[in-house]
Amino acid sequence: MDIVAAMDRAVEASFAAMGVSSPNPPVGAVILTADGTVAGVGATQPPGGPHAEVMALRAAGEAARGGTAIVTLEPCNHTGRTGPCSQALIEAGVVEVHYAVSDPNPVAAGGADTLRAAGIRVTGGVAVDAVENGPLRPWLTRQRLGRPMVTAKIAAGIDGRIVAPDGTSQWITGPAARDHAHQQRSRLDAIVIGTGTALADNPTLTARTADGGLYPHQPARVVLGHRDLPADANVRGDTGGPLVCVDSHHPADVLSALPDALWVLVEGGPHILGAFFAADLVDEVHAYVAPMVLGAGRSSVEIPGVTTLDDARRFETREVTTLGSDILIALDRSSRASAQD
Amino acid sequence: MDIVAAMDRAVEASFAAMGVSSPNPPVGAVILTADGTVAGVGATQPPGGPHAEVMALRAAGEAARGGTAIVTLEPCNHTGRTGPCSQALIEAGVVEVHYAVSDPNPVAAGGADTLRAAGIRVTGGVAVDAVENGPLRPWLTRQRLGRPMVTAKIAAGIDGRIVAPDGTSQWITGPAARDHAHQQRSRLDAIVIGTGTALADNPTLTARTADGGLYPHQPARVVLGHRDLPADANVRGDTGGPLVCVDSHHPADVLSALPDALWVLVEGGPHILGAFFAADLVDEVHAYVAPMVLGAGRSSVEIPGVTTLDDARRFETREVTTLGSDILIALDRSSRASAQD
Ligand SMILES: NC(=O)c1ccc[n+]([C@@H]2O[C@H](COP(=O)([O-])OP(=O)(O)OC[C@H]3O[C@@H](n4cnc5c(N)ncnc54)[C@H](OP(=O)(O)O)[C@@H]3O)[C@@H](O)[C@H]2O)c1
Ligand SMILES: NC(=O)c1ccc[n+]([C@@H]2O[C@H](COP(=O)([O-])OP(=O)(O)OC[C@H]3O[C@@H](n4cnc5c(N)ncnc54)[C@H](OP(=O)(O)O)[C@@H]3O)[C@@H](O)[C@H]2O)c1
Repeated sequence: MDIVAAMDRAVEASFAAMGVSSPNPPVGAVILTADGTVAGVGATQPPGGPHAEVMALRAAGEAARGGTAIVTLEPCNHTGRTGPCSQALIEAGVVEVHYAVSDPNPVAAGGADTLRAAGIRVTGGVAVDAVENGPLRPWLTRQRLGRPMVTAKIAAGIDGRIVAPDGTSQWITGPAARDHAHQQRSRLDAIVIGTGTALADNPTLTARTADGGLYPHQPARVVLGHRDLPADANVRGDTGGPLVCVDSHHPADVLSALPDALWVLVEGGPHILGAFFAADLVDEVHAYVAPMVLGAGRSSVEIPGVTTLDDARRFETREVTTLGSDILIALDRSSRASAQD
Repeated sequence: MDIVAAMDRAVEASFAAMGVSSPNPPVGAVILTADGTVAGVGATQPPGGPHAEVMALRAAGEAARGGTAIVTLEPCNHTGRTGPCSQALIEAGVVEVHYAVSDPNPVAAGGADTLRAAGIRVTGGVAVDAVENGPLRPWLTRQRLGRPMVTAKIAAGIDGRIVAPDGTSQWITGPAARDHAHQQRSRLDAIVIGTGTALADNPTLTARTADGGLYPHQPARVVLGHRDLPADANVRGDTGGPLVCVDSHHPADVLSALPDALWVLVEGGPHILGAFFAADLVDEVHAYVAPMVLGAGRSSVEIPGVTTLDDARRFETREVTTLGSDILIALDRSSRASAQD
């Protein structure tokens, strides 16, 4: 396997660490033997547990000696609850290290220099664009902006309607789109809804597999608004992540209530989504579009104070995917629009 | 060139006949010499003019002798204003004929039999699925349903909004999407809007090229509703197609006002679109989705009487295309939904 293919494999492995590793970055690592065979693959464990490099080295055992390590993030140099990864790589006898993203965190950085000082050949910046847009993106957003990455989720018909006048909204999107959304939940730190949605729909906000089982990682469930939720509300159920009630109308209060979160999904309803758009706190939009026209009912987003087309929030189309009969449109914060950083 | 590639070429040529040939089918034809070289390409001319086969035979001249004809529709057998195409192919000395779609029209059909009786090898059904979904689709719809094919056009942000609260809507979609929409107009028989849109936006409804010039074919401009339009309304301008005012609220009245039309595009506004959806008269949806959130303003479609999710009009996703930064989603009438035929 070549270095770029191994980096792909490391990225793939790191998806499993999303949500789980927070507030640490979800890193993936691959160890290749001297002849290019995969000897070990690893991903960051929950805080206090081993980092990706150590997991991959453990899987490789003696096969790592004389081999190559491929890591999505520069190996850390920092002795925290776990020893520094640079040291583990040196001790394992690895002779080459390739990483994608340099560690922007001054406390952890310097791993590459330590490795070089030990005589290891080190290359940074491998497939860096792809890796920065993968599982590390939320952590990089937090490093740069001091807040989690925010994704706004919309699930609507082609006319933007999310609910019929009588309140029915199950199901607008089909099973493939819903499974995708649940898989995303299993990688998140938190899902945010408003009291309106909590009271109208009484959702559980758990991350469930296609067969109805629970994913091992469950994101925190955040409800924004002044109203109290009933004692038997489903978001209080103990199969999901912790419930965080934010008694406020300010989306920034949600983010400060989640100091360890890397990635937050705002699921609605329209006023909560509108508040995040209005505060310019949306980094990405996931729009699941169903091939249907409702022709009445609520629209997905209500932004206060919009009067003219210049007030529209413009994004950039990143990716369009078909999910069964639905379409997932992923939009990114426009590089031309005013960003917070 | 093989037969399937030649059929592609014939389909490609027939786009130019759309709108122009109505009420006759926009057919394309290719003549290959005995060694498979393209000798001539043709498309149906305006009513009274030559059919596609005759155009292609003229282009080929003597090179057609001993050659092969590839035609999107079964050659006609009918002496109307032009002689039958079957006879023209026989006289030109063609030895093989391949067509896609059999002529469903009993007056014109029988061409294949005439050709066979003259000793020509004839194959029907070549690439028939692709051809039926190409330029012939509107004509086939009229043959089957006795009315033109109706496409509903939506141009909206990702939240389904088509206009800001102050009435501004220029531009939601970008230049690539607008050019695409104008190219569609150049292939249509008619564009339909409501008096609301005519009075609010005062559009010209002409088909214009990217540099602002006019396409040679201009569709009819239809305005539905009771109110009169001012004498200086842009839809009365003489650069576009004929103006048809339909003083009614019934979308079926639009279709009967256009007895020769094959393909009609309903451009809005929301009430006119809603009326066509409510009457189950929409065969196809073209949704141009811009990567923007308005968060306020009118939604693309208002259907009267919708109360619950079961009232939603469900379609099937046919194709998703990127047009600059916008996305074009093409939906078809669902084969599972109640169709008119
Ligand atoms: N199809 C979908 O994907 C989807 C997803 C979500 C929701 N929905 C639908 O959306 C509907 C609920 O809509 P909704 O708008 O009532 O719900 P919402 O946006 O979830 O909640 C609105 C409520 O949140 C509180 N709030 C907190 N911050 C606010 C702010 N900055 N601005 C305004 N309100 C704020 C207010 O309640 P307090 O008085 O308590 O402060 C407000 O009434 C339901 O019918 C649900 O089915 C559909
Ligand atoms: N972004 C886009 O692609 C786009 C496209 C089109 C329009 N728009 C926007 O849409 C807005 C206009 O919306 P609109 O709803 O007023 O316009 P509309 O749907 O074009 O026209 C509504 C009017 O049509 C007449 N009408 C005819 N049949 C009807 C029926 N079955 N049901 C109801 N009304 C019927 C009625 O007027 P009478 O009293 O005269 O009968 C009604 O007031 C404008 O702001 C325009 O910019 C945007």
